[in-house]
Amino acid sequence: MRKGLLFIISGPSGAGKGTIYNEVLKRRPSLKKSVSVTTRQPRAGEVDGVHYHFRTVDEYRKMIADGGFLETASVYENYYGTPAAPVLKMLDNGDDVMFEIDILGARQIKSRYPDSVSVYIMAPSMQILEKRLRERGTESAQSLSRRLGSALSELKQYKLFDYIVFNDDVKTSADKVLSIIDAEKCKIGVNEDKIQQILKENS
Amino acid sequence: MRKGLLFIISGPSGAGKGTIYNEVLKRRPSLKKSVSVTTRQPRAGEVDGVHYHFRTVDEYRKMIADGGFLETASVYENYYGTPAAPVLKMLDNGDDVMFEIDILGARQIKSRYPDSVSVYIMAPSMQILEKRLRERGTESAQSLSRRLGSALSELKQYKLFDYIVFNDDVKTSADKVLSIIDAEKCKIGVNEDKIQQILKENS
Repeated sequence: MRKGLLFIISGPSGAGKGTIYNEVLKRRPSLKKSVSVTTRQPRAGEVDGVHYHFRTVDEYRKMIADGGFLETASVYENYYGTPAAPVLKMLDNGDDVMFEIDILGARQIKSRYPDSVSVYIMAPSMQILEKRLRERGTESAQSLSRRLGSALSELKQYKLFDYIVFNDDVKTSADKVLSIIDAEKCKIGVNEDKIQQILKENS
Repeated sequence: MRKGLLFIISGPSGAGKGTIYNEVLKRRPSLKKSVSVTTRQPRAGEVDGVHYHFRTVDEYRKMIADGGFLETASVYENYYGTPAAPVLKMLDNGDDVMFEIDILGARQIKSRYPDSVSVYIMAPSMQILEKRLRERGTESAQSLSRRLGSALSELKQYKLFDYIVFNDDVKTSADKVLSIIDAEKCKIGVNEDKIQQILKENS
């Protein structure tokens, strides 16, 4: 059976990757998501196994030692990670999986699973990225400057990504991500088993 | 300015590549076609420069000698070829170009212009390909058997192609080709100039 494809959506704060990710999932409900593992405390209404898999620090560190993560990072003293086993199982079942993840996570996943397809969502220009961040109204001058610096330093690592989508508007960008998904499923390498089977049956 | 992309549509007789090609052109009128050069006589209603560029054998051979073709072939004592200059000019202008061409032509274009994107249109199975050829009602048993043999021998060369579309129905297949076109325009390599420009303007 054909294996599923793993898609990574990444991009700087303010580019709109989260909105595009949700729009793509809405329009392609067959895409699977991954439930992250974290060591932080559940917030009100969060359900273990639905929003996150909540684990103790010891349990988490054991999972790291066992190679149990596709990617893992610590943010403000808490660990967050993508567990490998359920994702690899979904791919083996032929399901396509999509993650929204930062560039460090994207790098880890690409190195662990080189067949993954990575898409970088960027604003059409740095000026527009700055405008979008300012319009949030939540960024201090320092935080704004830091985020713009990160965006540039990430963009320098563009070769990590297979595709880039300059996000003018969400609908068009979601169309592009869906086109990328559909095109990747037509790649010769992805269809090699089916081609070999036709050749075998008719040789 | 961003260069245009060159798309090649190929596939065996009966797979439906011509129908898909026309459907894609209809839905994406911005795609440019190439006018072939030929040494055969114009038929009633055919206009030089519109349906074909009609040339004498001597003129054609001189174009071959000058490297003037992206691909050239002779069919029943006549030459047919895709002139390089107008296509390269369209690509330089940023226009995307799409050809429907046989596998020999596809191989020549790929070798002459490795950045071209090649899509192989195949029936969902050899049985369906045979059924479609039979239903044409124009194939002798000998011709049918020859075409099926060619289809298999072409399919063995699948690595020449970047993508394969198994043509169940024209609309879905045209959707897939359009997705391939849109995805290719998001490829990192295609957008490298724009990324470098953003980095340069903000360094």
